[in-house]
This record gives sequence, structure tokens and C-alpha cells, in this order.
Amino acid sequence: MKQTILSLVLLSAVILSFTTMQTKKKILFFGDSITQQGAGPNGYIKKFDSILSQKGLSSRYETIGAGISGNKVYDLYLRMDSDVLAKSPDAVVIFIGVNDVWHKRTSGTGTDADKFEKFYNAIIQKLKAKNIAVYLCTPTSIGEKNDFTNPQEGELNAYSAIIRKIASDNKCPVIDLRQAFTDYLRVNNTDNKDRGILTTDGVHLNMTGNIFVAQTMFDVLSKSFTR
Amino acid sequence: MKQTILSLVLLSAVILSFTTMQTKKKILFFGDSITQQGAGPNGYIKKFDSILSQKGLSSRYETIGAGISGNKVYDLYLRMDSDVLAKSPDAVVIFIGVNDVWHKRTSGTGTDADKFEKFYNAIIQKLKAKNIAVYLCTPTSIGEKNDFTNPQEGELNAYSAIIRKIASDNKCPVIDLRQAFTDYLRVNNTDNKDRGILTTDGVHLNMTGNIFVAQTMFDVLSKSFTR
Amino acid sequence: MKQTILSLVLLSAVILSFTTMQTKKKILFFGDSITQQGAGPNGYIKKFDSILSQKGLSSRYETIGAGISGNKVYDLYLRMDSDVLAKSPDAVVIFIGVNDVWHKRTSGTGTDADKFEKFYNAIIQKLKAKNIAVYLCTPTSIGEKNDFTNPQEGELNAYSAIIRKIASDNKCPVIDLRQAFTDYLRVNNTDNKDRGILTTDGVHLNMTGNIFVAQTMFDVLSKSFTR
Amino acid sequence: MKQTILSLVLLSAVILSFTTMQTKKKILFFGDSITQQGAGPNGYIKKFDSILSQKGLSSRYETIGAGISGNKVYDLYLRMDSDVLAKSPDAVVIFIGVNDVWHKRTSGTGTDADKFEKFYNAIIQKLKAKNIAVYLCTPTSIGEKNDFTNPQEGELNAYSAIIRKIASDNKCPVIDLRQAFTDYLRVNNTDNKDRGILTTDGVHLNMTGNIFVAQTMFDVLSKSFTR
Repeated sequence: MKQTILSLVLLSAVILSFTTMQTKKKILFFGDSITQQGAGPNGYIKKFDSILSQKGLSSRYETIGAGISGNKVYDLYLRMDSDVLAKSPDAVVIFIGVNDVWHKRTSGTGTDADKFEKFYNAIIQKLKAKNIAVYLCTPTSIGEKNDFTNPQEGELNAYSAIIRKIASDNKCPVIDLRQAFTDYLRVNNTDNKDRGILTTDGVHLNMTGNIFVAQTMFDVLSKSFTR
Repeated sequence: MKQTILSLVLLSAVILSFTTMQTKKKILFFGDSITQQGAGPNGYIKKFDSILSQKGLSSRYETIGAGISGNKVYDLYLRMDSDVLAKSPDAVVIFIGVNDVWHKRTSGTGTDADKFEKFYNAIIQKLKAKNIAVYLCTPTSIGEKNDFTNPQEGELNAYSAIIRKIASDNKCPVIDLRQAFTDYLRVNNTDNKDRGILTTDGVHLNMTGNIFVAQTMFDVLSKSFTR
Repeated sequence: MKQTILSLVLLSAVILSFTTMQTKKKILFFGDSITQQGAGPNGYIKKFDSILSQKGLSSRYETIGAGISGNKVYDLYLRMDSDVLAKSPDAVVIFIGVNDVWHKRTSGTGTDADKFEKFYNAIIQKLKAKNIAVYLCTPTSIGEKNDFTNPQEGELNAYSAIIRKIASDNKCPVIDLRQAFTDYLRVNNTDNKDRGILTTDGVHLNMTGNIFVAQTMFDVLSKSFTR
Repeated sequence: MKQTILSLVLLSAVILSFTTMQTKKKILFFGDSITQQGAGPNGYIKKFDSILSQKGLSSRYETIGAGISGNKVYDLYLRMDSDVLAKSPDAVVIFIGVNDVWHKRTSGTGTDADKFEKFYNAIIQKLKAKNIAVYLCTPTSIGEKNDFTNPQEGELNAYSAIIRKIASDNKCPVIDLRQAFTDYLRVNNTDNKDRGILTTDGVHLNMTGNIFVAQTMFDVLSKSFTR
């Protein structure tokens, strides 16, 4: 009898752990070098993991980094099958756009606005066809000045507006990093520096930036978390 | 008995015509505005049709135009399913690369060389997976001067070299339009003009250019034509 | 006696008119296509003339247009002797900077910020050496949107900041057209259009723009007008 | 008597040294970073000095380096008075044009062809007005490949053609470094490398490049040397 009870308890534990394993949701972060670094030590994905842990959600959510340096929107589209769909994520956070604007200046290889929108929509359609939840991030910054003198800031804002429109068209939540950065820098960049507040070089996140991005993402994503 | 013979003759005719129908091969031209115009009146695809007709091959080969203005290599990749695979071509002639170089200068939205190669290969893999024959064209011209002073000529040559390498890697025939244009212009552009020999504006084909491209393509494609 | 009085009256008139002629101050507008058009019908210089006339100042001030399409700061420097100093102006209004930013995108031939400042200062030194009063305009607009999404707006603001610094360094009055445009468009561009409020194409002034620029310039220049 | 003879000897010595001083001709090299480095150890100007010495010409000719990194043609114009005319050279070797082309790609701040010609002519006029002999160099290289695939080579050749035309218009000797480099690389760059034959990075001269430039310049300049 004792043995039978013990067996049942063990079985229950096994079933429970299996169920837990089954229901652990995968959140994939899909982007460029910011996301590639985000999966490294002190990166925003690691910070996101820490928040999950603090909130006691680590058993229910796990994160996957899928960032590659230099990626623009069409590079994401090219590697969707291997880097995203093959991993069966429950949610994908798309964080792209900085290079689409930045490379216009640095190498003459940015992305036209109409094509940016077209590829972005194609990515969303592929994810939706697999019932994957999609979150859209606006791009963070190319220069941190807060008096509207970052050279490519106007265009970065224009592409952010395109992303907000795509999100609205597709009924996807927006993680408005561009707005969050602008608001944060207005208050905290008292010396109007072009780097060093949330980034190391105007683009790539420093420690504060990684924490800030993780928290901003968590605030939006957690609204959809099952209780 | 007569009726039986007649029936057999008719049946044979039906079978023959059906077989002919079945074996009419589809050649699809996949490209940018040059190909879009190529499908229009006096375009290179129409000239190609004329050559097929002159050679008595019209019953065995048909052409499909699939060019869209402004396309770069990644735009081709995005529309492969709808514009190429859905049409079940037997052969695809890829004619892309001018905008990938040209737009670096005109709008800061050209294509980096490494990504050009990556998307080009991805297109070829998709076509090969369907047993479609693939022909690769090098890009024609951005400026027709023959003393090596066309501003973007060096880079157009570099991308042509990449295409020749991709063709070699994938064992695909090359239609070397870049070389053909260079050779033609050396002899025929006696006043070293930047347009007006094979193009209207340095890029888009005039009547002579359309005929020249059609003939150059036919010379390569016809090597694989069944006799 | 009568004759003597008449002679004296006539002589006085001649002297007076001569004196007036002598004291008629020359204001030269030195710039690019906006200024070239400004000297044409309904241009801002003509509107400036109208304001002078309305204020009864036409006898004391005259205007000279010296704008050439496509000019950047170094083009102004190159033609100073022939187009400015040779005309012995009393005041020069420098209105340059749009092309220095704009051409970075359109033709890869904009002006680096450090060289923009260097040439601007060189122009001012040459004018000051001749005791000519110098007024510095910040550039108006490249796109009229008011939600800070004009692609090159960040850089236009950065160059405006450079001009304000040069003015301060050299103790020259600033005609802050950039600020005036931004303020005007915030209120009056209710549909957030990229052209059609003060310009025809985002850059070149329409009728309202010409009047607005003329009035903004007059407000600053008239502070120094002799009474 | 002795005293008189001594006086005459002394006087002769003074006259001789004065004459020598008078006839030592100054050759000024006016350019960008290539020329700035050219005045440094192992630079092309130092190599030019060595050739002068080998030929026993050091007592009759001296060299002055006037190169500044990043300079384009208009930067030369801006600093003519202080850096060239103030030094009263007998001959000026203008070696400019690489950055005018290169910076179109790297920073969107190259020089339009028509303005390149205009500023170049303005420099020549100022030098000729002082009876200074003027030598024009075509630009060396942006990339050393010899199969005409250096990305900006077409434009570098176009600007070289402009310089040859300016030289012809102004009856100035050309030091055709562009042609000399092309010829040299065709023979000596057997592996079609983009750097390392005459330059360290495709643009700046290595030891072999400095010697080659010095010799090429000497071959042209020495034709005008007084015997």
C-alpha cells in the first residue's frame, strides 16, 4: 500500500514536471547586433531573464536570443525558417530598424521605407500563420542627444512611425523603445551628450541601456502573461 | 475498319498535340525595370520571342516576364513564391544587380556585397529544389562610356564577378551581359558617350540594346534546347 | 534776389538728394537657390523691398540679391570678391546651409561639419575686414513635417546650432529661420504635410514662405536701422 | 693692397653664397594626407629629396611639404595664402582628388565634378598670378585591384580626366600618377589584391609607393630643371 502511494506521488511529480515543461513558453528576441549583444553577459535578454526570475516566472517562460550583427529587416526575413520557426517560439519580439536607417549613411546600403514595410509585414504574416504572438519594437537610437540634433534622428523617427503603423495594421502590441529612449534622455541626458547615457556609442546598449530595454519590454510582454 | 483507322489517326493527333502542349517549356525572366520593360513592346523578351519564332521554336518554348521596377536581389527573393514558383517555369533567367549597385549612390539603399551573394544563393537553392534550370545574367551598365570613367562601373564589375562566382559554385550557366556590353561599347561607342548606344539613359535598354540582350541570352539558352 | 533764393533752394535740393544717395545703405543677400529665387518675382528679397517701402525706408536702404542655385558654404567663399566685395555692401545677410546637409543624401557631396564652420568663419573674417555688418541665417527646412520625422532634420538642426555658435563667436546677429520655421509649422501644419505650408517642395519657398522669411529678416535687421 | 684683395675675396664669397641662396628653387607639394605623410620619414617628399641629392641637385632645389589629412580641392583653396603663397615657392605640385571622390562613399561629403574643376582652376589662377610654375597630379588609387573592380575606380578615372583637361586648358604639365599606378599594378599586382602593392590600405602609400611617386614626379619636374 505504502509503495503504491509512493508510486502515485512520484508519478504525479513526473506528470507535473512534464506538464510544466510543456507549458514553459518560449519568447524569442529577433534582431541585429543589439540583440546579439543582448544575449551575452549583462545583455538585455539576460536582464529580462533576471526580471522573470525576480517575479517568479522562470518556470513558465524562457528566452531565446536570435540577433545577428548588421541585420536589416530583409536579413531577418531570409533566416526566419532556420532561426525562428525551427525553434517553435510562442512569442517573437522583433527589434529591427537601426541598421535600415544607419547604413544609408555609413555604407549606402540602408533600406527604402516602402521595402522596410513590405518585408516587415511578410515576417509578421509568417509568424501569424504559425499562431506565434508578435511584438514590434521601435528602434532605440542613433545618437543620444536630446535637442533633436542627432544627424539621422528624423529618419529614425520616420521608421518608428512606420513600425507603429504596421503594428496597428496587424493588431500587434508595440514596445515603443524609441519613445521610451526619447523620454528618458530628455530627463537624464543633462549635458546633451551623444553617447554614454543608455549606449556606449550612440547605438549599442551599455549596462543601463540593457536594463532599461529589458524592463520596457517586460512591461509590455507581461500584460499577456498567463496567471 | 476505315473508321478504326480514322479513329486511330485522330487519337494519334490528339496525343501528339497533347504531348506538344506538355513539352512546351516555360522560360521565365526574373528581374528589375529592365525586365519589366523587356516584357513590353520592343522589349528584350519580345525580341527573344521573335528569335524563337525565326528559329521555328515557338511551339516548344514560351516566355514569361517577371520584372518589377526598382527590384534588388532581396526583392526577387521576397516574391519568388507568387511570381516564379506559382508559374512552374522550366527555366529561370535571373537578371538582377543594377539597382543593388546604383541605389548606393542615388538613395543610399544599395545592397552590401556579402548580402547580395547570400540572397542570390537563396534564390538559386529554391529554384534548384524544384528542378528548375537557372541562368545567371551579369548586370548590363550604369553609364555606357568605354574609357572606364562611368562613376559606378568599378562596383558594377565587382558585382558581376560575384555573380560569375555564384554561377560557378552552383554550376549554372552565365549570360555575361556585362562582358558583352563592355566588348560592344569598346567597338561601337566611338564618341565615348554615356548613353544612347545600347541604352536610353545609361541603364535602360533602347531598341538596339533590347535586341542585343535578347540575342546574347538566346546564344546561351539555346545550347540547352532539346533538338 | 529771387534768383539767388531759387538757386539756393535748387542747390539745397541737389545737396539733399546727393546726401540721400550717399547714405542709401546696401543690404546684400548671399546664398543658394532660395536666395536666387528670392530675387525673382514674389521672392523674399522683393517682399523685403515691399516692407522697406511700407515703412518709408526705401530711400535709405536698397537690397542686392546674390544667390546661386546649388551653392554650399565653400561656393560662397569662392565668389566673395566678385559677387560681394565688388558691390561694396553695408550689410550682408548670409543664408546658407541647406545644400551642405541636403546633398549628403542626394549626391554624396554635402559638407562636413568642421569644414562648414571653417569656411563660414573665413567668409565672416573677409566681410568684417571691410567693416561690413554680417547677419547669419539658420537654414529653413528640408521637409516641413512637424513631428520630427523629416529624414535630414536632425542634421539640419545640428548645422543650425553650428551657425548660432559661429554668430556668438563673432558677435553677429542671428536670423533664426530654422527656429521660426519650426515654431510656425508646429502651429500651422495641422496635417503634418512634408511640403506646401511655407515651401513648394520642402525646401524652396512658396509665397507664404517668402513673406515669412522677409518679415523674419526685417525684424532682426531693423533693430540696427538708423533713425 | 693685401687688405683690398682680402676684401675682394670676402665680397666674392658673399656674392656667391647670396647667388646660391637666390637660385635655390622651392618646390612645394600641396595636397592631402598622402602628402602629409609624404613629408614624414620615408615619405615621397623625402624620397624626392634623396633623388635630388643623388643627382647632385640638392644645392639648387629644396622641397616643402604642405599636405593636410582629409583635404579636398576646396580645402586647398582656403589655405593658399597661409600655406603656399606665404612661402614664395617657385613651383607647386598639386596632388589632390582622392578625398573628393572617396568621401562621396565614406561620409557623403565628396566634391561635385563641376565644383572640383572650378576650385582647381581658381587655385591655378592664384599661383599663375604670382608666376609660380604649376604641376598637376592625377589621383593615385582607391583600391589597387587591376581588373577594374575597385568600387570607386570609375569615378577616380573621371576626375583624373578632368585634371588632364584642366592641365591642358592652363598649359600646365601633368604628373599622371593615375596612369602610372594603373600601368604598374597591371604588371605587378599578380594576385589582384586591393592593397599592399603600392599602398597600405588602397589609398595611402607604402614604401614602394612613396618611391614610385617620387620617381614619377621627378621624371616630369626634371624636364624643367635649369642646367
